[in-house]
Amino acid sequence: MREVAIIGYGITRFGELWNKSLRDIFVEAAIKAIADANVDHIDSMYVGSMTPGVFVGQEHIGALMADYLGVAGIPAMRIESACASGGLALRQGFLEVASGMSDVALVGGVEKMTDGADATYALSTAADQEYEVYQGITFPGLYAMIAHAHMHNYGTTRDQLAMVAVKNHKNGALNPNAQFQREITRDTVINATMIADPLTLMDCSPVSDGAACVILCPLEKAKQYTDIPVKILASGAATDNLALHQREDITSLKAVRLSGERAFKQARLKPEDIDVAEVHDCFTIAEICVIEELGFVEKGKGGEFTERGYTALEGKIPVNTSGGLKAKGHPVGATGVAQVVEIVEQLRGNAGKRQVKGAKIGLTQNMGGSGASSVVHIFGV
Amino acid sequence: MREVAIIGYGITRFGELWNKSLRDIFVEAAIKAIADANVDHIDSMYVGSMTPGVFVGQEHIGALMADYLGVAGIPAMRIESACASGGLALRQGFLEVASGMSDVALVGGVEKMTDGADATYALSTAADQEYEVYQGITFPGLYAMIAHAHMHNYGTTRDQLAMVAVKNHKNGALNPNAQFQREITRDTVINATMIADPLTLMDCSPVSDGAACVILCPLEKAKQYTDIPVKILASGAATDNLALHQREDITSLKAVRLSGERAFKQARLKPEDIDVAEVHDCFTIAEICVIEELGFVEKGKGGEFTERGYTALEGKIPVNTSGGLKAKGHPVGATGVAQVVEIVEQLRGNAGKRQVKGAKIGLTQNMGGSGASSVVHIFGV
Repeated sequence: MREVAIIGYGITRFGELWNKSLRDIFVEAAIKAIADANVDHIDSMYVGSMTPGVFVGQEHIGALMADYLGVAGIPAMRIESACASGGLALRQGFLEVASGMSDVALVGGVEKMTDGADATYALSTAADQEYEVYQGITFPGLYAMIAHAHMHNYGTTRDQLAMVAVKNHKNGALNPNAQFQREITRDTVINATMIADPLTLMDCSPVSDGAACVILCPLEKAKQYTDIPVKILASGAATDNLALHQREDITSLKAVRLSGERAFKQARLKPEDIDVAEVHDCFTIAEICVIEELGFVEKGKGGEFTERGYTALEGKIPVNTSGGLKAKGHPVGATGVAQVVEIVEQLRGNAGKRQVKGAKIGLTQNMGGSGASSVVHIFGV
Repeated sequence: MREVAIIGYGITRFGELWNKSLRDIFVEAAIKAIADANVDHIDSMYVGSMTPGVFVGQEHIGALMADYLGVAGIPAMRIESACASGGLALRQGFLEVASGMSDVALVGGVEKMTDGADATYALSTAADQEYEVYQGITFPGLYAMIAHAHMHNYGTTRDQLAMVAVKNHKNGALNPNAQFQREITRDTVINATMIADPLTLMDCSPVSDGAACVILCPLEKAKQYTDIPVKILASGAATDNLALHQREDITSLKAVRLSGERAFKQARLKPEDIDVAEVHDCFTIAEICVIEELGFVEKGKGGEFTERGYTALEGKIPVNTSGGLKAKGHPVGATGVAQVVEIVEQLRGNAGKRQVKGAKIGLTQNMGGSGASSVVHIFGV
């Protein structure tokens, strides 16, 4: 396989983009990425999106986006794995270029969630329809059960959960593309409307519109386009049982662990080598479980680790410097690619007030549903 | 890139499978494929499906199917490009193995269309929601416009359209997995209920449930599993404008032509080298346009070519020996993989009464929507 680098990126602001359609926001991010990479053509395109059919009645968006970007003719398709769609689209773009099939590939992610569809129903299609959704449970409820089990098994506290949201809002306040650019306090989280005990509204990522794109090419050609190519050092993906009731321990996200192990092995790196990470904090408890499964902290200590500030911008391992899903927003199909955009900015040294000093190695972790799919990428400059 | 072979396949009967769920039918086909290939593990999985979210409220089916197949842990994802989802899933499985990322990959396609959702609405999500669907048009209407233009430009006749359906039902009558295993006549087609002039019910492929799977491995390892590995000689994909009104000539399916040219170039073969082909006859006019774009016959002569029997089982280039989408059935996400299953049976010499004598080179062509995406594979033994 050839080595692959990211040579450009583009992202829309995340939020309630009522004046822009699904195709508008994708094309906006794609044109920014093409301009940033300064490429004169694209050989192929992968679009991550979770459920545009349910949200806005539009499937077939690989071809649609190629058409509206003005590149109809090239191979283009959609990749779906619930909220991990964007991360897995990157994996496919990586294979496309690594295999030699394409020299210049565009990988994008997009979701339009605020146009009127019932977002809670649309998102529930990522859970097990026959065993979970049929019983009436939705994602806040699934993650609330994980949170309760984590609190019971490991002594994780309500305050520790809240500190994930407080940290991510602090970072989001520094990100001009974030949906929520304001800081919040522990009390804001604790006193917010209860959604599914113990999770309040401020433990949950929002419903968002947005798109993000990156341009890939072989590493050996990357210097033609950019002074700082960001090399894709590894791509690890995994799955787990879809329904929580089938798992031995609902606080263990096996797909996250496996995808992380595969990526670290491929990159020949360890968790302590990572300078900055973007992980899937769809709910505050998710970030705690994920940093444990990735090996940034031992199992059960994720809450304490967060409370001590080790994952803050100035901490041992800054996590979700973009604001994460919580503050940056979570247009589900776009999220996995938006995480990559943040890491590219960090590794190029372009992250402004969010910059992690001297960041050379970054990681993204993107997952679907209650963790039944997960994909980890590691990047280096 | 490594050379890649198909070493096993499995397929369900296509039809109204009311007693089996989406996951049931996928697992049935996957287990057959695994047994046929005699592999003891799978490294990764690609699932083609068009819109399980709209049809049965279930997205995230890469992870779901891995789970219900008993292989949770492996990388698995869904590929979507409307009715070309299955064919593009094969392309991704091909890249997965060709790149060296996996040694044994399962590629499947599945759709459950008869469980109560409005199939016409669900399928319309493959067209342009803003410019086509919003105006009230659905797929029979789009293909009817193509048919009228083809009749006007090239003198294609109502009888020639009908002969596509007559031929494909004749083949389907020999296929034990086909939804409709009965022959029909020209009069059956002409006198059937009008759907969208000039297309009657019998010019249209049916609404179906079904699944199909194949197992891929590097060619150099294929002899460990099978006496007759079917080599993937080429994989060509392309896109076109999504909406008909944007195309210069609605009788030209540019994505089909491009995907064919790319595949023939990659395989270093010509249309006359193909012994048997499965193409996307979602409507009778589609098969006529496709055989023209692939170069089996010159532009405008596809109707006459069909009427003369050149595409029949004993003809110059047998097309849709399985019965095609028309008679075999068209569970949209499964179709692209089911086409491959037919070609594997033909090249192995296992097609029974449908066998094309001495078939050594086969082709599949699978498309999405009114042709905005198309993927062509060429196979050889």
